[in-house]
Amino acid sequence: MATRILGLDPGLAILGFGVIEVDGAARTDTGIAVVDFGVIETSAKTPLPIRLGTIYDDLHQLLQQVQPDVVAIEKLFFYRMGNTILVAQARGVVMLVLGQHDLSTVEFTPAQVKQALTGYGNADKSSVQAAVARELGLAQSPRPDDAADALALALAAWFQR
Amino acid sequence: MATRILGLDPGLAILGFGVIEVDGAARTDTGIAVVDFGVIETSAKTPLPIRLGTIYDDLHQLLQQVQPDVVAIEKLFFYRMGNTILVAQARGVVMLVLGQHDLSTVEFTPAQVKQALTGYGNADKSSVQAAVARELGLAQSPRPDDAADALALALAAWFQR
Repeated sequence: MATRILGLDPGLAILGFGVIEVDGAARTDTGIAVVDFGVIETSAKTPLPIRLGTIYDDLHQLLQQVQPDVVAIEKLFFYRMGNTILVAQARGVVMLVLGQHDLSTVEFTPAQVKQALTGYGNADKSSVQAAVARELGLAQSPRPDDAADALALALAAWFQR
Repeated sequence: MATRILGLDPGLAILGFGVIEVDGAARTDTGIAVVDFGVIETSAKTPLPIRLGTIYDDLHQLLQQVQPDVVAIEKLFFYRMGNTILVAQARGVVMLVLGQHDLSTVEFTPAQVKQALTGYGNADKSSVQAAVARELGLAQSPRPDDAADALALALAAWFQR
């Protein structure tokens, strides 16, 4: 039976998502297929409650389309005060929606994702993106970066199983 | 016409709320009446998505009961890293719900609330709570503190108008 993993890289302006599917029949060299990837975007010109409403509605729709078995999400770490608070508010809405869909979630720090994909917790962004492309049998790394990061999260969740 | 103001002091474990109503006919010495106050609580033993779901559902229900004209909410300021991220995630859900009810919100820092109620931005907690009780014609300050803080936010919004 196939396992569908959704990776989510939460943000307020850009929320990256990436969906992979793994089953017995190898569809790429590594047996992992890309189902979908992309971003949910909101404009900084829009009031916060409306932006959060867009994330809420779009994520509900995405989950209904994708029907993931498990969701991998970035563990929020502190980087810049104002930004962290905004990202955390968006992440709160994401966690709410995941709970409303009764989905089990796994959390990874950026270092854990790098470690899982490259064997090195301090790997640079391009190494991680190259690993994402290689594991998924893609000619080039997915765009934008937020979608690639989300696929990396989904891969990390798969490698951990 | 009466104006109903809901004050919200967002938190993950305890979210305080307080509702005041102001109209032409003075119902207390200052013409401000308390409609309701209390807290929405979630347990630290419960997974985050479920806790956020409780806040989402309970706040929707509260807004339907209270039908506020305006909502005053605490502006999140950085205090402790881990805690701030948790509180911010809860606040994201609160802002989402306010947007879903198409409510206009005003934000205040704790210092602005202290200034509005006591004339002094560094006033201690007991002075602010005494001011809340005095303005609302209550024999003692409302409990728990989170509900009193929410009523203070509602009063600050009224005094600002």
